[in-house]
Amino acid sequence: MSKKILIVGGVAAGPKAACRLKRLQPSWDITVVDQDSLISYGGCGIPYYVSGDVADESALRSTSFHMVRDEAFFADAKGVKVLTRTKALAIDRKAKKLKVENLENNAQYELDYDKLLLTTGSKPFVLPIPGADLDGVFTVSDLHKAIEIKKRIAQGQVSKAVVIGGGAIGLEMAEALTDLWGIETALVEFMPQLLPRIVDAEFAVMLKKHLQEKNVAVYTSEGASEIVGNSEGKVIAVKTPQRTLEADLVIMAAGVRPRSELAKEAGLVVEPWGGITVNSRMQTSDPNIYAAGDCIATRHLVTGKQTFAPLGSLANREGRVAADNMAGGFSRFDGAVGSFIMKAFERCIAATGISYETALAEGFDAEYSLTAPADRAHFFPNTAAVILQMVFDRRSRRVLGVQAFGAMNDSISARIDTAAVLISKGAVIEDFSMAEMAYAPPFSSAIDSLNAAAFVADNLCAGLLRKVNMTRFLAWMEDFSKEPDWLALDIRHPKDAAVMVDKFGAHKWLAVPYAEIRQRHEEIPADKTLIILCDAGTRSYEVQVFLDHLGKRNSLVLSGGFNVIRRIGPDWLG
Amino acid sequence: MSKKILIVGGVAAGPKAACRLKRLQPSWDITVVDQDSLISYGGCGIPYYVSGDVADESALRSTSFHMVRDEAFFADAKGVKVLTRTKALAIDRKAKKLKVENLENNAQYELDYDKLLLTTGSKPFVLPIPGADLDGVFTVSDLHKAIEIKKRIAQGQVSKAVVIGGGAIGLEMAEALTDLWGIETALVEFMPQLLPRIVDAEFAVMLKKHLQEKNVAVYTSEGASEIVGNSEGKVIAVKTPQRTLEADLVIMAAGVRPRSELAKEAGLVVEPWGGITVNSRMQTSDPNIYAAGDCIATRHLVTGKQTFAPLGSLANREGRVAADNMAGGFSRFDGAVGSFIMKAFERCIAATGISYETALAEGFDAEYSLTAPADRAHFFPNTAAVILQMVFDRRSRRVLGVQAFGAMNDSISARIDTAAVLISKGAVIEDFSMAEMAYAPPFSSAIDSLNAAAFVADNLCAGLLRKVNMTRFLAWMEDFSKEPDWLALDIRHPKDAAVMVDKFGAHKWLAVPYAEIRQRHEEIPADKTLIILCDAGTRSYEVQVFLDHLGKRNSLVLSGGFNVIRRIGPDWLG
Repeated sequence: MSKKILIVGGVAAGPKAACRLKRLQPSWDITVVDQDSLISYGGCGIPYYVSGDVADESALRSTSFHMVRDEAFFADAKGVKVLTRTKALAIDRKAKKLKVENLENNAQYELDYDKLLLTTGSKPFVLPIPGADLDGVFTVSDLHKAIEIKKRIAQGQVSKAVVIGGGAIGLEMAEALTDLWGIETALVEFMPQLLPRIVDAEFAVMLKKHLQEKNVAVYTSEGASEIVGNSEGKVIAVKTPQRTLEADLVIMAAGVRPRSELAKEAGLVVEPWGGITVNSRMQTSDPNIYAAGDCIATRHLVTGKQTFAPLGSLANREGRVAADNMAGGFSRFDGAVGSFIMKAFERCIAATGISYETALAEGFDAEYSLTAPADRAHFFPNTAAVILQMVFDRRSRRVLGVQAFGAMNDSISARIDTAAVLISKGAVIEDFSMAEMAYAPPFSSAIDSLNAAAFVADNLCAGLLRKVNMTRFLAWMEDFSKEPDWLALDIRHPKDAAVMVDKFGAHKWLAVPYAEIRQRHEEIPADKTLIILCDAGTRSYEVQVFLDHLGKRNSLVLSGGFNVIRRIGPDWLG
Repeated sequence: MSKKILIVGGVAAGPKAACRLKRLQPSWDITVVDQDSLISYGGCGIPYYVSGDVADESALRSTSFHMVRDEAFFADAKGVKVLTRTKALAIDRKAKKLKVENLENNAQYELDYDKLLLTTGSKPFVLPIPGADLDGVFTVSDLHKAIEIKKRIAQGQVSKAVVIGGGAIGLEMAEALTDLWGIETALVEFMPQLLPRIVDAEFAVMLKKHLQEKNVAVYTSEGASEIVGNSEGKVIAVKTPQRTLEADLVIMAAGVRPRSELAKEAGLVVEPWGGITVNSRMQTSDPNIYAAGDCIATRHLVTGKQTFAPLGSLANREGRVAADNMAGGFSRFDGAVGSFIMKAFERCIAATGISYETALAEGFDAEYSLTAPADRAHFFPNTAAVILQMVFDRRSRRVLGVQAFGAMNDSISARIDTAAVLISKGAVIEDFSMAEMAYAPPFSSAIDSLNAAAFVADNLCAGLLRKVNMTRFLAWMEDFSKEPDWLALDIRHPKDAAVMVDKFGAHKWLAVPYAEIRQRHEEIPADKTLIILCDAGTRSYEVQVFLDHLGKRNSLVLSGGFNVIRRIGPDWLG
């Protein structure tokens, strides 16, 4: 028997569900309503459209075979009816009717449904500061805004821009403006670091340094307090408590919120922060109403908590699961581990699971291994170091998260995706030690970086390795009086170590090359806390084990070593 | 109490185990013996050394911090004694002694052990054909041979080369010779395809075509029957039953065999094909003797069988596990799924788990999905199609293997590594549908290729999709009389389809564009078996579902579509 399916929202989860449903139930009547005129687009591609990497906005709403996904396409090719410029106003759950308004003529009418799917997406958070409504202030929330931003740039109206918000979209927009258009761009982030809650501080600092190298002015711990306009109502500057930044374009990328008013007003269960509550079959608290995409709450597979995970990739999979269940099948979406990846100029930064900081806040007995392996066999041409951090719980040995920062290629994808599926399954350190990573020198090392990170985690758990965190070490380097009994033991090549000895004096910086430690260990004092330093941390660990064996258990290894220090770039490094 | 550890073999697993053991038990006496003078090298890097990508052989036996791993390095830095040019002759298990010979002075003597580790590696299989011992015929089995090969090339002694064997090493050597030295190179493979038992035939054909485009002459189903020399004993040609190929260099890459004579003669349990039998703690049938690396039998995690998996990556992990257990700890190596990846000029080919052909032979109810997605968001610049095959068991829905062929970058690594850890855990199709792949347009699609392959597998299991295999379709194209009631339904862009209609006539090739099927379905005959064709197979599936709904259940989808056909390059394509 044919059924009537209504879907509210036509960007990602909605169209995916509509098409899947039509294939599962070709005789059903499937209608998508969306208040916008443009639908079914890759919102994550907007920064690349603005940059010019993607020449035309229609590419973002085209299929891989170059057909534009408009109303006609859905009707002709998919058998799905799409009503654009049609706003959903209210759900009458008893009568199973959706009240809508045609935004062209303001006519209001009702549509019947047997099953309803809410894919209402997210909306940008607009900071409640003066000037947020000035001409030239844009959120990156839909294609229309993206088109307008690009038009202004192409017309030469933009020479200075300020991006408010150091999340993924803000960062991608800052790159788009700077790299391809040469716009003088500043980015302000209210929190003390970029990508807050996604990566740990060290990773954010490495990213910040790279952005600065690429001429993006980055101000963290510095929120926009006011947007200033001229007499014509056009933006001219952004004020923070510390400074005024000139701007003829402001991108407000202060995050997004679930768009769930329709659900809430209909009396569906909604999380306190706005995400629509669904079960693993994507059903809301009304069994005839499903929800998917940015508007829902997603179970985090590490913390078990309901979280906000607005990602096109999840939206598509949730849409498919909703469709399967609406069609009468059985399909589950159990949650997500929050995988994240981003290009930033010549770097890639990625994370999956939770950060060390989050792990501590969640009450885990958290620890992390920080390594700096090569992204392929070290003897292969053009290798680059990857900074890789594995966060784990000491008690359960469960791996909670992985973060990586390295050169812009796909090698980090390989490690993050592998880590993500393992973390999703509740994997422990041993599962990572034994993860079978395909090996050939152009792609990987015989001991893959993910295996190596797990080996270090294992050594930490076993108490074989004792480390000092980078933050604490950097604080000491700023002020030796903070830890007066510390001494750096630099086991790198003598010429590298000598630079540091010259700078800080032998009483703070002792140089003994790695391969000479076994012969010269008597030179190493037993009455000070040794901070063992090398390029990646691996050799330091070996030296620590050897010194321990001699009874000199007074050392700590600086995990990540100079490979991390160089990427953080403290002033003392010169 | 200090113990004496002896390790036989100093290339990969041996040194790894030695160093790990020394860290776990710094007071133990650890000695590695190896008959060679060069040790601890990355054997997988040999083709890249020969090609010139790696300038100096010492790079292959250096650490990532540029120290050569020789006897002095192991003594000074690691505290491990290495006896090179020392051949292990026999094990006296009762007395716990190893008889060795110093190859410099032929002195024989005995070494005591508390625990012994065999990491004797593999040896190249030398074909029993005339001329195999001629000057200019090389296996790629150790660094000395690699050095000699490169010397001859650099001295201009090589203008024509023949590679015997179409496995990974043969293919990598063919590329090294052709690409960087411009040597006229032919490759012969006795089996009907390249990479036999690793990938299925279609993947081997795509690879073969690319090699041919890069000027490697490839002859499959054609074994070397004789190697011909001149009066000075120098190689001048390789004969096959079909032809004579001139050559002043012959690379014999006919596979390797475990080097396990020492174990066998000591009465240890060895598999019929030569692999030393070990438990998951790497113990042989003698609890005081462990084994790791190329010389052992490895449990295949899909078939459960003992298999030969000679890979540097596994050797390193096995060596670590052996060391943990020898040191008195507990660590397991449960087996492998056989992940494989290779660069071939501008392409990457990879596989994990088992192929379709192997799955059938192993008695699985095997089926596969064949897809051709983009390697990142299709609107992003410079995307390339990846051909991805997922092999699964219809009854259990377990995924048995994944193969991929695409552009030379790391995007295939990401999918293969993710697939490998899932397959290792016995994952079913749904685990792949839901695999959380990190998404951003420069790296992936909103629906990742691995998810998409699982969706297709799911549709195949559900009977929603009925497909025709590429081999059967290509046979029909060669001879329409093979399936006289077949008709191709080409739903691609009219200009692409028109070329084929012109070539084969409307009675064999019907063109109706994808988006017009719903309007023009009456043109589609119900009395013939329709083979629906598009670029990747996705649209064809949608059309099949629609035709089924109309009651026209007479169609089959050509999975992979023209994206696969073009890479196979049949003559009729022109």
